[in-house]
Amino acid sequence: MRKILLIGAGRSASSLVKYLLDKSDKENIKLIIADISLENAQKLAQNHPNARILQLDIFNDEARKKEIHSADIVISMLPARFHMEVAKDCVTYGKSLVTASYISDELKALNEEVIAKGLVFMNEIGLDPGIDHMSAMQVIDRIKKEGGKMIMFESFTGGLVAPESDTNLWNYKFTWNPRNVVIAGQGGVAKFIQEGKYKYIPYNKLFRRTEFLEVEGYGRFEALANRDSLKYREIYGLEDVLTLYRGTIRRVGFSRAWNIFVQLGMTDDSYIMEGSENMSYREFTNSFLPYKPYDSVELKLRHCLKIDQDDVIWDKLLELDIFNPDKRIGLKDATPAQILQKILMEKWTLEEDDKDMIVMYHKFGYELDGKKKQIESNMVVIGDDQTYTAMAKTVGLPVAIATLKILKGEITTPGVQLPITKEVYEPILKELQGYGINFKEKRVDYLGYNPFNL
Amino acid sequence: MRKILLIGAGRSASSLVKYLLDKSDKENIKLIIADISLENAQKLAQNHPNARILQLDIFNDEARKKEIHSADIVISMLPARFHMEVAKDCVTYGKSLVTASYISDELKALNEEVIAKGLVFMNEIGLDPGIDHMSAMQVIDRIKKEGGKMIMFESFTGGLVAPESDTNLWNYKFTWNPRNVVIAGQGGVAKFIQEGKYKYIPYNKLFRRTEFLEVEGYGRFEALANRDSLKYREIYGLEDVLTLYRGTIRRVGFSRAWNIFVQLGMTDDSYIMEGSENMSYREFTNSFLPYKPYDSVELKLRHCLKIDQDDVIWDKLLELDIFNPDKRIGLKDATPAQILQKILMEKWTLEEDDKDMIVMYHKFGYELDGKKKQIESNMVVIGDDQTYTAMAKTVGLPVAIATLKILKGEITTPGVQLPITKEVYEPILKELQGYGINFKEKRVDYLGYNPFNL
Repeated sequence: MRKILLIGAGRSASSLVKYLLDKSDKENIKLIIADISLENAQKLAQNHPNARILQLDIFNDEARKKEIHSADIVISMLPARFHMEVAKDCVTYGKSLVTASYISDELKALNEEVIAKGLVFMNEIGLDPGIDHMSAMQVIDRIKKEGGKMIMFESFTGGLVAPESDTNLWNYKFTWNPRNVVIAGQGGVAKFIQEGKYKYIPYNKLFRRTEFLEVEGYGRFEALANRDSLKYREIYGLEDVLTLYRGTIRRVGFSRAWNIFVQLGMTDDSYIMEGSENMSYREFTNSFLPYKPYDSVELKLRHCLKIDQDDVIWDKLLELDIFNPDKRIGLKDATPAQILQKILMEKWTLEEDDKDMIVMYHKFGYELDGKKKQIESNMVVIGDDQTYTAMAKTVGLPVAIATLKILKGEITTPGVQLPITKEVYEPILKELQGYGINFKEKRVDYLGYNPFNL
Repeated sequence: MRKILLIGAGRSASSLVKYLLDKSDKENIKLIIADISLENAQKLAQNHPNARILQLDIFNDEARKKEIHSADIVISMLPARFHMEVAKDCVTYGKSLVTASYISDELKALNEEVIAKGLVFMNEIGLDPGIDHMSAMQVIDRIKKEGGKMIMFESFTGGLVAPESDTNLWNYKFTWNPRNVVIAGQGGVAKFIQEGKYKYIPYNKLFRRTEFLEVEGYGRFEALANRDSLKYREIYGLEDVLTLYRGTIRRVGFSRAWNIFVQLGMTDDSYIMEGSENMSYREFTNSFLPYKPYDSVELKLRHCLKIDQDDVIWDKLLELDIFNPDKRIGLKDATPAQILQKILMEKWTLEEDDKDMIVMYHKFGYELDGKKKQIESNMVVIGDDQTYTAMAKTVGLPVAIATLKILKGEITTPGVQLPITKEVYEPILKELQGYGINFKEKRVDYLGYNPFNL
């Protein structure tokens, strides 16, 4: 039997494991599921006869090396900072490796050795990064092959709550790491190009410079700029493109309300608030407002941020209970961002029957035969339940499919890479369709960077 | 003759040098003026018979040690990060040291050795820190001695342009390091206490939460919060105070207009702008605004920041010429903050005949015999000219006076210290009065943290 070693068995590995175990008899696979928590591994294995579970501390060199040595291929679903331990052993013992993380400089430095040993180190093959790369490159390569010249590329992804579970005023629940949502957009300016001009959005304006997206059957969404749009120029071969923009999708209205937290300073993760443990929700809110003994916290906030009484933003804030004088934060030495996260998790955590939703949206602008043309494509995936979520499916299935194809010798080009070549994306996107992960494409009039949207 | 070694002969040392040389015959002083630039030293010495000038690289251990060894006392006016080289030698050779900089942890660590050798290491004895400490402690000690209990302390300082030289719409010119003005307020939340409640102001609201100050004969000013108010609780013995707030003074209206730069992202110093060298002022401004080919940069900015056509903010922006399509930035690989500084320096640099002005304002609230009382005191100093500026006088004279008093054995308590004891502040404040540096004090009704101001 061929042995696949999966290291890291968090919730996001559910669909990945299911895919490999479902195929394990036919493909003659043994799947070793290794995690620091044996319980995590057990949950995913579900006593499947072709699964072996293993308690593994990746800093235990002996145990880690032993397992990698005896595997035929390795998948690392660990947090990105832990990949290098695994990657170095994979080089040593001549094993291919698959991860869903961005290629670090450290990992890239292994490229020559990886090629010399004929190994495939496939990375960025989850959802974002992953499906975004593959689905974009498929259309870009097709446009170029037809003789088109790319002039615009915009790409948006969002992890949201499914319409049937969308029950709060924010049209949002946490379907992934809440901390990343709270601190999103911090730590660097959002930089991109529009019609050949460099544009920069500072954090304090990020949530007010959104763009609208319409997805048939799902209504309207909004997108806000990511930090890192420009690095895709080189990766996608779009050096001459005039507009390049990547963003995050939310339901319309989310960003305008979220901006209140940004403006107040509640998303700051850089300092500890005095007395956070015994602070009430109301005191937390009041900390960011001027001292005015004769006015309520509510009026001070309305005034400070100029919120009209009939503005829906206000109802969104009330829904989160941020003026409650009795609820205590209960977190010692916490930053504003940590406190805000706690407040949000009370209201934005998925209920047992809730489903999540992934939305991806691409816009491709190009010139062909002297005419400007535009293609838009989008993907919507709804989770089955709280185990096989849309996130777990869209992250895990491409990883699983790639792993099996590398193992079977169907993907062979060696090196530290991401899935941007036809050899890789074509068969994987095709197989994903069988799991309901597919793109709808339409041709539209060329709009460029829609001036009426902003 | 007693030898005073001054290391660091920048423009801010002019009044310091003049004070010591004026007294050099009477006090039997030889002043050695050492700087990396002999020209700087020469300018300050003006061929005075009791001055010796010296080209000194403070990283030349031999030269530095030799000079410190042969001096009777040392003044370091170097940038704060260079003090330690000097301080260690002062310990070795048993010389007292005077600086106008904040006490670093590294310097504090020398305290035991300094005491053991009976040396006085006097720091924070310029303007801010310096005169602020002394003038505040004088009133605080008096209130406490009368049996009062301090409940509020607010303190504000600003380096501004003198009324007779105040010729632009911003009522501001650079009288000190322009870079510090451009990046002021970044790198940490403004934190203080008001009536017992901790308050935090994020950078994006800092310039909208100002307080007004009225100075008789000089009109209205505004003050915005500094980052570091709370560390003064311990230093000033104000552990039980309910309100503690330190701020920076500007003319009314400056902050509201400056906020435009903050909101646009023009004060960001964390990234380099593409093509900054050949960028026009107009393109710089446009980089922070959405792409809208049918609207002018002017309209986009007005709309983005909701500036009415008849708002004086608009005239302030026009005065700086930020919409000029022909002027080039001319700075390679510059950050937004560096570019903004360049634009501002064109308009805000002092003319040859311009004078600067220092304003300091304290508010002391206390309880005595069951009644709440308030004292306010303020100091205004106008520069003589571009050499003996208000900044040079208020920074340099306290340093010079302290140095002479230590040399003469009038200040003797050893240790690494700042001027908060009566032994130090009383004679220095008294002597400063002779140079026009004095505080006007008045009793007012107790207002607490004035609720009508915010």
